[in-house]
Amino acid sequence: MNFLEERIIRDGEIKPGNVLKVDGFLNHQMDVVLLERMGEEFKRRFIEKQIDKVLTVEASGIGIACMCARVLQVPMVFAKKSVSSNLGDDLYVSEVESYTHKTTNHVIVSKKLLHKGERILLIDDFLANGCAMYGLIDIVEQAGAEVVGIGIAIEKGFQKGGQDLRKNGYHLESLAIVESMNAETKEIIFRK
Amino acid sequence: MNFLEERIIRDGEIKPGNVLKVDGFLNHQMDVVLLERMGEEFKRRFIEKQIDKVLTVEASGIGIACMCARVLQVPMVFAKKSVSSNLGDDLYVSEVESYTHKTTNHVIVSKKLLHKGERILLIDDFLANGCAMYGLIDIVEQAGAEVVGIGIAIEKGFQKGGQDLRKNGYHLESLAIVESMNAETKEIIFRK
Repeated sequence: MNFLEERIIRDGEIKPGNVLKVDGFLNHQMDVVLLERMGEEFKRRFIEKQIDKVLTVEASGIGIACMCARVLQVPMVFAKKSVSSNLGDDLYVSEVESYTHKTTNHVIVSKKLLHKGERILLIDDFLANGCAMYGLIDIVEQAGAEVVGIGIAIEKGFQKGGQDLRKNGYHLESLAIVESMNAETKEIIFRK
Repeated sequence: MNFLEERIIRDGEIKPGNVLKVDGFLNHQMDVVLLERMGEEFKRRFIEKQIDKVLTVEASGIGIACMCARVLQVPMVFAKKSVSSNLGDDLYVSEVESYTHKTTNHVIVSKKLLHKGERILLIDDFLANGCAMYGLIDIVEQAGAEVVGIGIAIEKGFQKGGQDLRKNGYHLESLAIVESMNAETKEIIFRK
């Protein structure tokens, strides 16, 4: 087991409905030492990709993306989920279906922040069905930029997002892939 | 002028209605080198406060708070603005009036993440009327913890938030205080 898998075993909580709570160290409270180590691991795995920029979506991806961008020494952009009054009107917008909440959301990035030819690393805390990722990919493609890698903290390996993205040729690296989990026995199986 | 004021002059945009856009380096795209320098400056200003934890509110405060927490080597917690399905039900909740959008929002923190006696540094990107800050202060007080400092990137000195917080005895440090700005002449005056 790697450092993130060990931490999930120690501090994660399994809830009914295949919910894995990691809010004590990853997406509500953040252990910045852990986040930095994750950033270094993403750098190691994507070192040959010549990344220009890290892109994530608010809110829980921001901390990991920020620390990853710091290690890589590149800027980080986070996509917004709603149009605030001072975001301007020159925007890339993509629709995202949420399977969990049965709603349609948007991911939005100002056009001045993504440029043709830029090499983009996508970062997020969770990957399940991959809907948010396809929203970010769409925005990067609208900008004429290129997704050169996708870095995920925790992939739910029993949902289709990871398999789909790999099949579509994306270089996806997940630091922990949950193969299965059981809310009654509290057991988590990670993919080897 | 300090490093943040210089950056605001260089890359900030003044829009009608006292709107200062800093989305190219602070709250949409993030310059992580700048954020780290801000974290170091907050550490310098709050070094004697023996901070246990950094608290901010999603989404645009997260990057600054994360980098500040990294420099201080303490955990960071971000308050959520809505209750997601797996947040649990043991929550501190505070109502926040938004003067800008004429709405009532909430800031929400899981009870397991704030504890009696903890020394908390509040961090945010902007301070205007201070409503979001009073929401965070309320949550810290509900937990029996103590706000030992408030670190802000950009304070709108012509709005009442900063004056109020200082009058109420809080140790508030803003890296840039905008005294006035003019969308026509593009001039910004910072407080000395």
